[in-house]
Amino acid sequence: MSPLAMATAIARLDLVQVERIGFVAAFCTTTAFVPQLVRVLRLRSARDISLPTFLLFSIGVFLWLVYGILAGSKPVIASNTVTLLLSLSILFLKLKYDRTAMKEMKP
Amino acid sequence: MSPLAMATAIARLDLVQVERIGFVAAFCTTTAFVPQLVRVLRLRSARDISLPTFLLFSIGVFLWLVYGILAGSKPVIASNTVTLLLSLSILFLKLKYDRTAMKEMKP
Repeated sequence: MSPLAMATAIARLDLVQVERIGFVAAFCTTTAFVPQLVRVLRLRSARDISLPTFLLFSIGVFLWLVYGILAGSKPVIASNTVTLLLSLSILFLKLKYDRTAMKEMKP
Repeated sequence: MSPLAMATAIARLDLVQVERIGFVAAFCTTTAFVPQLVRVLRLRSARDISLPTFLLFSIGVFLWLVYGILAGSKPVIASNTVTLLLSLSILFLKLKYDRTAMKEMKP
């Protein structure tokens, strides 16, 4: 193997490793919201969860999805589609359970 | 302006626009966690917040940071550094307030 071919092979290996880290990162930040959704459903409460957080986060993830589509990046599209669905579900439950809690407080 | 120069200018404009969407997306998904941190501090409770969510999310954001460093992407480094600090703060408060709540429950 020539030094140039070796350097190219190492650079390609590095690129694959860096991409792999990106995939693991995307997997973590996406699946992270599954236990949050489960917890809210189980407790039937989202009192401590911030509404502006999940509103802003959903808008941000939606914009990441638009970015992914325009930039033609499949991993960005895939991970942000899943995160958006999870984030919107948590947002919906926050609104739902907060309304229920408000009703229960009234006599 | 030649058709090629015009096409290049349009393509560059598009790239700038796409990058701008990425920046707005990063701004949203980063600052989103500020109101969550404020809410937990204000309520002195993080009962409804999922521990595995913020644990997994922090690991994921840390890996995005590593990815950003290896890929040499300054926006990825900057946004994930801020998100990691916010995420770790929420995680720390979750552990702190849950421990306090546990102690108060014991006679």
